[in-house]
Amino acid sequence: MNGFRKQYSISDYPSITKEFIKWLGFSLVIGTLVGIASAALLVSLNWSTNYREAHKVIIWLLPIGGLFVGLLYHYYGQSVAKGNNQLLEELNTPKDIIPFKMAPLIFLGTVVSHLFGASVGREGTAVQIGGAIADQFSGWFKMNKHDRRIIILMGISSGFAGLFGTPLAGAVFALEVLLIGKIKYNAILPCLLVAVVSNYVSREVSHYLHVPHTHYHIDAVPKLNTLNFFWCIFAGILFGIVSTFFSKGVKFFSQFSKYIKYPPLRPVIGGTAMAVLIYFIGTKYIGLGIPTILESFNTTMNTYDFAIKIILTTFCIAFGFKGGEVTPLFFIGATLGSALSMFVPLPISLLAGMGFVAVFSGATNTPIACTLMGIELFGMEGGVYIAIACVTAYIFSGHTGIYTSQIVGVAKT
Amino acid sequence: MNGFRKQYSISDYPSITKEFIKWLGFSLVIGTLVGIASAALLVSLNWSTNYREAHKVIIWLLPIGGLFVGLLYHYYGQSVAKGNNQLLEELNTPKDIIPFKMAPLIFLGTVVSHLFGASVGREGTAVQIGGAIADQFSGWFKMNKHDRRIIILMGISSGFAGLFGTPLAGAVFALEVLLIGKIKYNAILPCLLVAVVSNYVSREVSHYLHVPHTHYHIDAVPKLNTLNFFWCIFAGILFGIVSTFFSKGVKFFSQFSKYIKYPPLRPVIGGTAMAVLIYFIGTKYIGLGIPTILESFNTTMNTYDFAIKIILTTFCIAFGFKGGEVTPLFFIGATLGSALSMFVPLPISLLAGMGFVAVFSGATNTPIACTLMGIELFGMEGGVYIAIACVTAYIFSGHTGIYTSQIVGVAKT
Repeated sequence: MNGFRKQYSISDYPSITKEFIKWLGFSLVIGTLVGIASAALLVSLNWSTNYREAHKVIIWLLPIGGLFVGLLYHYYGQSVAKGNNQLLEELNTPKDIIPFKMAPLIFLGTVVSHLFGASVGREGTAVQIGGAIADQFSGWFKMNKHDRRIIILMGISSGFAGLFGTPLAGAVFALEVLLIGKIKYNAILPCLLVAVVSNYVSREVSHYLHVPHTHYHIDAVPKLNTLNFFWCIFAGILFGIVSTFFSKGVKFFSQFSKYIKYPPLRPVIGGTAMAVLIYFIGTKYIGLGIPTILESFNTTMNTYDFAIKIILTTFCIAFGFKGGEVTPLFFIGATLGSALSMFVPLPISLLAGMGFVAVFSGATNTPIACTLMGIELFGMEGGVYIAIACVTAYIFSGHTGIYTSQIVGVAKT
Repeated sequence: MNGFRKQYSISDYPSITKEFIKWLGFSLVIGTLVGIASAALLVSLNWSTNYREAHKVIIWLLPIGGLFVGLLYHYYGQSVAKGNNQLLEELNTPKDIIPFKMAPLIFLGTVVSHLFGASVGREGTAVQIGGAIADQFSGWFKMNKHDRRIIILMGISSGFAGLFGTPLAGAVFALEVLLIGKIKYNAILPCLLVAVVSNYVSREVSHYLHVPHTHYHIDAVPKLNTLNFFWCIFAGILFGIVSTFFSKGVKFFSQFSKYIKYPPLRPVIGGTAMAVLIYFIGTKYIGLGIPTILESFNTTMNTYDFAIKIILTTFCIAFGFKGGEVTPLFFIGATLGSALSMFVPLPISLLAGMGFVAVFSGATNTPIACTLMGIELFGMEGGVYIAIACVTAYIFSGHTGIYTSQIVGVAKT
């Protein structure tokens, strides 16, 4: 436990103040840089998505896009290919400063993946850009392990916050993601301040460039009663179980992609299969899928939508496309929640919102961050429903998750 | 670290499900009982406050009320006199089941303290009632240490949630309060479910008895910009520093009360001093002070209001009156925030709301619970301001706090 009894002492203030000013300074600098990078990512993804939607024929070039991403990482990115897991590993057992090239490589890889229609996300990108930018400072300032850990967490926090426009969730996500079942607070202030700065800068820049953050809206929240309480738990259990399919899916498809010995060929083969598939099933399930996520809040989605998105996204990730898993997890949760409205007597927008964050909670084991994210995106009205769904999904996802480098700090049961 | 790598396994589900049903069952039973008790406390305090306001002459009987409380604890309550700290000690080093009489004794002690006009709170009462009720189940079901720990946390969570009407804050408060700087998640689901149930029951019962929870309202939240960001941090630092005065105040006055060797005499002497003081300064600073807290959201309060409340409350607690510190901490924070509006260019209601939760955060070292409480009470609009204030206050309160049995899990800096 390493616990020491607390002391009452005025003499703590000089050291508290010094530390505070240090982290405030880093928050302003790193938050600004990562905020600008997050806005650039949002704007670039907006451009590539619009271009693809206007020129759907480009999807046939997905194998070429895949080849580009594959060669890029094979020849320049071997040292940064592990992405989010690499950040977690550096946090758990620090070794080397994360190469700065992680940031431009993942940026480029993600924009190309989206331009040609892969089914991937964008949070991995933001978190890696944040982590790579932030960790340069630990090199420049020759930081010790303890401070470097805080700096990397600040990178994660600011990337998350800048991308999704959710500073509180970003800060708590960085604290929660490292260890399943346990968080430590020594980075809480730096993570919060940098998230607020990054979110502010990202909002200002993307607003200036006319690419605002998406607004989601839960339009009806019924009074909690015994029946709703149990339905909410039921939905949370489903969200948790579904989130495990996602982690399993990546593992499943990786078995196949590993038969292709030359890694740059993997996204070529994967991209070909995707392009043919998209030709038959249409473009609903590719890219970020924001329009479908928004639609889930108003219209009952098909019961199979979430399943198709799981298959396509885990396939794309296993075959080497870049971007991350979180926006697809939002898609999966929102469409599943929406479909549940067929037999769960809760409003469709509430179920979609609960699924949006709860599947993410189950897949990443970050229940408090996801609850905060739900409140930041949808408002406090549905807060209790969202919290129950996120925490129940967290419990029912077991000790699995999309980040294989997470370590179990405290067992769930 | 005791971390084991996570496993993927379907075979976890039977044990997860079994545990889940067990804790859901306890949540329903304990949540209902504690919810009813919380409502009873709210109603009784409402009655005693109204009675005192209508018959102010009763305040001269404060020494008699004090004698009653003193004798009560001296002859019947020696084994439960440590209150909240006793709960924390049982959590850290489990020894004996908490005697059930903790619940009726603290209930009676608190209502009498309020009836005659002591300056105390009510959260300690709710938490002790919750803990005492919950811990009986660990005896009846012969629970092991691990489960008993969860049960006591459920008692704390449900007491807090039922009293303040803030289930998310209640759940996280129970997880955060034990160790400074560290939380473990194995109780997260039971704590959340029991908090939701207790809050639901408490709301229904108190609504039925026409004693609704107080509604606070932040009516204007300016857009965050650089200047507001720094003002918010500045306010958070002040809130944190002021919160340490509270902990120091209890220590300071306890030196004097300890000169009175026969404990039941302490509240008699203390009550006499209070009654004389109140005769001169009026009744603004006694009891819970809800009207003044509400007024802080609209009207700029005096710069000395918070200081007087600190002195009176720490005096009353040191001299043996019962109830707890939290509502006085709300009073202190809200009036201080309100007074700050004289020179901090943020809206008065926002500053009052920030202070309300941030001084509490500094005094109890529970920044995430306090942020959630702020959002639950005031809505998400001011969420970022509230979070910065709570986290900054947490850092600037150092390793001090009102719960002397808290253990430092991870140092703040």
